[in-house]
Amino acid sequence: MTPAKRANFQRLLTPRHIAFVGGTDAGIAIGEARRAGFAGQMWAVNPRREHIAGVPCLPDLASLPEPPDAVFLAIRAAEVPAAVAELRERGAGGIVCYAAGFGEAHAEGAALEAQLKAELGDMVLIGPNCYGLINYVDRSALWPFAHGGGCPGYGAAILTQSGMFSSDITMARRSLPMAYMISAGNQADLGLAEFIDLLCDRKEVRAIGVHIEGLSDVAAFERAALKALEQGTPIVALKTGNSAIGESLTLSHTGSLAGSATLYQSLFERLGIISVTSPSQFLETLKFLCVAGAPAGNRLVGFTCSGGGATMLADHAETIALDFPKPGPEAHDALTALLPPIATLSNPLDYTTPIWGQPEKTKPVFAKAMEMIPGDATILVQDYPAEGLDESQIFYRNDAGAFAEAAAEAGLPAAICATIPENMDRETRELFISRGVAPMQGIHEALNAMRDAAWWAGRRKELLAQPPKALCVEHGAANAPTMLTEAEGKQRLAAAGFAVPEGRCVARDGLNAAADAVGYPCVLKMMSNRLAHKTEARAVALGLGSLQEVRDAADRMARDVGAYDAEAVSDMFLIEPMAPAPLAELVVAIRRDAQFGLSLTLGSGGILVELLGDTATLLLPASDAEIGRALDRLKVSRLLSGFRGKPAADRTGLIAALQSLAEFAMTRPDLAEIEINPLFVYEDRVLAIDALCQITPE
Amino acid sequence: MTPAKRANFQRLLTPRHIAFVGGTDAGIAIGEARRAGFAGQMWAVNPRREHIAGVPCLPDLASLPEPPDAVFLAIRAAEVPAAVAELRERGAGGIVCYAAGFGEAHAEGAALEAQLKAELGDMVLIGPNCYGLINYVDRSALWPFAHGGGCPGYGAAILTQSGMFSSDITMARRSLPMAYMISAGNQADLGLAEFIDLLCDRKEVRAIGVHIEGLSDVAAFERAALKALEQGTPIVALKTGNSAIGESLTLSHTGSLAGSATLYQSLFERLGIISVTSPSQFLETLKFLCVAGAPAGNRLVGFTCSGGGATMLADHAETIALDFPKPGPEAHDALTALLPPIATLSNPLDYTTPIWGQPEKTKPVFAKAMEMIPGDATILVQDYPAEGLDESQIFYRNDAGAFAEAAAEAGLPAAICATIPENMDRETRELFISRGVAPMQGIHEALNAMRDAAWWAGRRKELLAQPPKALCVEHGAANAPTMLTEAEGKQRLAAAGFAVPEGRCVARDGLNAAADAVGYPCVLKMMSNRLAHKTEARAVALGLGSLQEVRDAADRMARDVGAYDAEAVSDMFLIEPMAPAPLAELVVAIRRDAQFGLSLTLGSGGILVELLGDTATLLLPASDAEIGRALDRLKVSRLLSGFRGKPAADRTGLIAALQSLAEFAMTRPDLAEIEINPLFVYEDRVLAIDALCQITPE
Repeated sequence: MTPAKRANFQRLLTPRHIAFVGGTDAGIAIGEARRAGFAGQMWAVNPRREHIAGVPCLPDLASLPEPPDAVFLAIRAAEVPAAVAELRERGAGGIVCYAAGFGEAHAEGAALEAQLKAELGDMVLIGPNCYGLINYVDRSALWPFAHGGGCPGYGAAILTQSGMFSSDITMARRSLPMAYMISAGNQADLGLAEFIDLLCDRKEVRAIGVHIEGLSDVAAFERAALKALEQGTPIVALKTGNSAIGESLTLSHTGSLAGSATLYQSLFERLGIISVTSPSQFLETLKFLCVAGAPAGNRLVGFTCSGGGATMLADHAETIALDFPKPGPEAHDALTALLPPIATLSNPLDYTTPIWGQPEKTKPVFAKAMEMIPGDATILVQDYPAEGLDESQIFYRNDAGAFAEAAAEAGLPAAICATIPENMDRETRELFISRGVAPMQGIHEALNAMRDAAWWAGRRKELLAQPPKALCVEHGAANAPTMLTEAEGKQRLAAAGFAVPEGRCVARDGLNAAADAVGYPCVLKMMSNRLAHKTEARAVALGLGSLQEVRDAADRMARDVGAYDAEAVSDMFLIEPMAPAPLAELVVAIRRDAQFGLSLTLGSGGILVELLGDTATLLLPASDAEIGRALDRLKVSRLLSGFRGKPAADRTGLIAALQSLAEFAMTRPDLAEIEINPLFVYEDRVLAIDALCQITPE
Repeated sequence: MTPAKRANFQRLLTPRHIAFVGGTDAGIAIGEARRAGFAGQMWAVNPRREHIAGVPCLPDLASLPEPPDAVFLAIRAAEVPAAVAELRERGAGGIVCYAAGFGEAHAEGAALEAQLKAELGDMVLIGPNCYGLINYVDRSALWPFAHGGGCPGYGAAILTQSGMFSSDITMARRSLPMAYMISAGNQADLGLAEFIDLLCDRKEVRAIGVHIEGLSDVAAFERAALKALEQGTPIVALKTGNSAIGESLTLSHTGSLAGSATLYQSLFERLGIISVTSPSQFLETLKFLCVAGAPAGNRLVGFTCSGGGATMLADHAETIALDFPKPGPEAHDALTALLPPIATLSNPLDYTTPIWGQPEKTKPVFAKAMEMIPGDATILVQDYPAEGLDESQIFYRNDAGAFAEAAAEAGLPAAICATIPENMDRETRELFISRGVAPMQGIHEALNAMRDAAWWAGRRKELLAQPPKALCVEHGAANAPTMLTEAEGKQRLAAAGFAVPEGRCVARDGLNAAADAVGYPCVLKMMSNRLAHKTEARAVALGLGSLQEVRDAADRMARDVGAYDAEAVSDMFLIEPMAPAPLAELVVAIRRDAQFGLSLTLGSGGILVELLGDTATLLLPASDAEIGRALDRLKVSRLLSGFRGKPAADRTGLIAALQSLAEFAMTRPDLAEIEINPLFVYEDRVLAIDALCQITPE
């Protein structure tokens, strides 16, 4: 982004003056700017009205007394490009284009959107087809709908692709500190990547929440996400549009492709982006990150004043691999001395009602436990009584205060969490925030947030130590790919340095010589680029022990394949030595996606891939460590590490072979897909037993 | 339960008079009875005070003017048995024993609890170590803590094993209609099973929510759950104490064993009990069931006024296998005529802002979609603005009213759901409830509730058509089980009519004759009851082709097993014909649990069971249909139904073999465990290739 555009974004974000252009919707936006507390100059532009929402109207843009820092455009789509051009001439800073009817709607709209973009110059634009921007820190808004929300001087920057969803978030009543809310709409100029880039290094932004329906430029998003990572600003992503219906709705909603859910998850993991699936988890995770910060690891020290609450903490923690370390003997003795006799010593700890609400007794328990039980963060469960029933609120508050002090002294990120999400009133939540303790709503939501925050911190460390290479997103040719025969595919693999059986590809009349050269037992396969499923077509014969068996198999194949697909019958055969039984079978696939570029999928091979769907996908290029982790995630991975007394596989060699395949794919833009299934993995080598390649003709 | 106890439970539930016995806690309970609106007689019993909470004190139980229907006991544990005896003499109805220090605490407490129980006679008792009972329908409470909650004359009966959790639930602010709240504590007399039995046929109870830490009498729970099922009262269970820490905490909390999470899930599925894992889902599912009732199937017709909301509905529905049927061509045309041109026709349907808030336009859309898209229930997504920002509330309410009318006319269970749980205020929620529409908080929570409610309806139909037999929970002997050798185990299987290879078990010097009789290729295994893991011990040799190979294998085994475990070396061998390759390998296990009795576990066999942990567990006896469904749930099941052109397995024969094994186990109380791994499954038969049996000596 040019320095001029960056400067103009700053003008849009913290405007001295805003011009509201349009009718009723402009009037609502004026009201929302006032509601936000905007103290600068507001102009209304409308040739047919005298006043809008109490602001006197100027007849046209030319009448603006000076170039506006920010413009809210709520005029008909067809009029937008001309208005944008005029605003550029005048030297406006940035525009929120509320108007819809652009790329999301129809072809004429897409043309208008292109025109609009061409007229921007150095100006920045949010939208079109968006709600716009709320700045909670500096109190301004360009927003066409009633909004709520607020912040204590810092908070999350939230970026969405759905105006209504961003509105719903501003209306949420869970005290999430919000610094900025941006509804991005069609992203004709500024998109999610640009907003992350522009906001991640602002100190008031403690986390970024992104609602993603689809990304248009994955590479730009990657660069921005890595900048945020470096700046220490965690990103939480809520990706929607993953279902078949959702994908088609997304296309009609903002005109963007939803894309493969798997590739998005691979992208998030690659970039240290926390991925959540529900709106409430989205908000709770952001709240924890903004208020408490990320724990260095996944060990917790937990407290409740209820056996039931402690059990629920422990249950969910085990489910999501968070650790409540057991107190050691010294911690046990020290805490026993501080607790009533009825208390059961454990972590999470039910400190029991006899000392409830007595901070002089609970503070030493909290402090001693945080001192003596190794933890990276701490959590207290408290459900506050409802309004009008809150005689006991003071007891809860007392313990909360003691807990906050102990956590601050121990230097631990801390949360107080209600079992039932709404059992924590606004005043209490805000009190906790002022003490630096995250007021979390729901045990599951709280623990998920803490686990994910710790994951982010760990992933950040890894990525800063070994930054990922840029994604390989160059597109292949747009033509439809064609399939190679197995023999042709294996030639390519061999050229890439990948081991394949030492076979021969010959015509029927060359089988005698080839079989003798290959030796017995051997494997015979009919070669045709119509045979993607050779087993089903009976185009494979295994374990042939003699020339006669080879010839019989060739004859049988001609008949069987003929019955399966007459056009697939071929005179060409691949004959190979029978490979010995491997330690494990994998499936390995490299695919090229129009949005994400190359990806590598690993899975349990042979028939298991179909039975289990046990796969892991990485975007390319990937580091050896990432490939190793992907292998570890597979169910079949135990077979690679010395299963039931068998030798371990050559893991380093396997990873090196996969890397050479990846590098080969990255240098061959005509390669649309390679699938090796099975890849036999041995103690000291790997061997591609079958391979399908798809090539895109240039 | 005796009629006298039933009658006394009715007295406790709807008392004419309550005696509060104790000091400060009794005073709080008096205040809570008032808060609940209790209009009957209250007595306080305390020899040292003149008044408690404004009620004049009687010095002792003998001074009570008449036998109290209900008694709240908040005295020291040691004094409880004598008080209970006196109350029985006086003819009291029922007791809530708030006091703790019984079975959950220590051995003396357990003895006190036994005494207490022995003194009850026909009285009923809740607790000890519990919060007690709130009756929201008839307005009474025996409850020692501030409570909230209410109901519109009907609602859920909620039973918990954690006092604090039940208190948290009463404080929840989500308009869940609650008929009764019972905190069951140690369940010395009335337990979860009895409460279900007593409440499930009351017409004001539309659903029962059970928080379970552990069940003491699984058979009684089963009987009660089946009664509820017959009465058409769904049960929603929140089982906690599933983690290692949680299990030990549960034991110290209410003195009950948490038990195996898998067996609990099997029990819930067997009995048509909806199982949830989070407190908020627990409340939302109950709310949907109480207000809207259970849909007949899992097809939904959905509406939003936002593309983002429709996408989220579709995404989560796909994840949990709920179906939004695509509108057919006729529905498409009919709806297109009613919608603005910018609307994209789909289900869920974004009806778009141009008609938002205009019921004369939205009602026809709702009605037409419900008429023409096949659905079993309907859902509308609406997030209500926060208080003070609610200029647009009327628009939302207009559409909500139109939706409620359309759903009532179509006869569909209906929900209106907020994307962000708290974005629906109390007044709005209560308005929806008055219209029979469930006010659901959170898209995920709403869809999960609808899916589970539909599951319940389907399961109920099945179970009423074919009621399950009573669980086989007779306990085996308490001695530690001992392992049989494979040969001994296979003899038992053969006796049960289960097919095993036709082998011989012989000493080393009998191998010659045995091998010749068995034939080649054959399998040799060393027999010892110390060889639970024969492969690791190298005590198995497969595919032996000659007598010489058999003898060599026997020699090698003696050496290898000696190196593995010198005491495991044996002179006895099992020699069997080598079994042909099967269509699939299963693992089959029958185990006896002290709480749940016999269970049958099926899984992917061979090494897959270890790699995948792909298993399904049923409690016994199980119907053929249940066994079939368990098989279908396995990943390996595709191999049974004709995978990649192979023949299908004899499913009926497989199920019959499993049933004969189950029947065998049910008649042999000394059998602690049988594990067959692998069970080879063929086109026309099954064969137990290896078997481990554990026997409990009488």
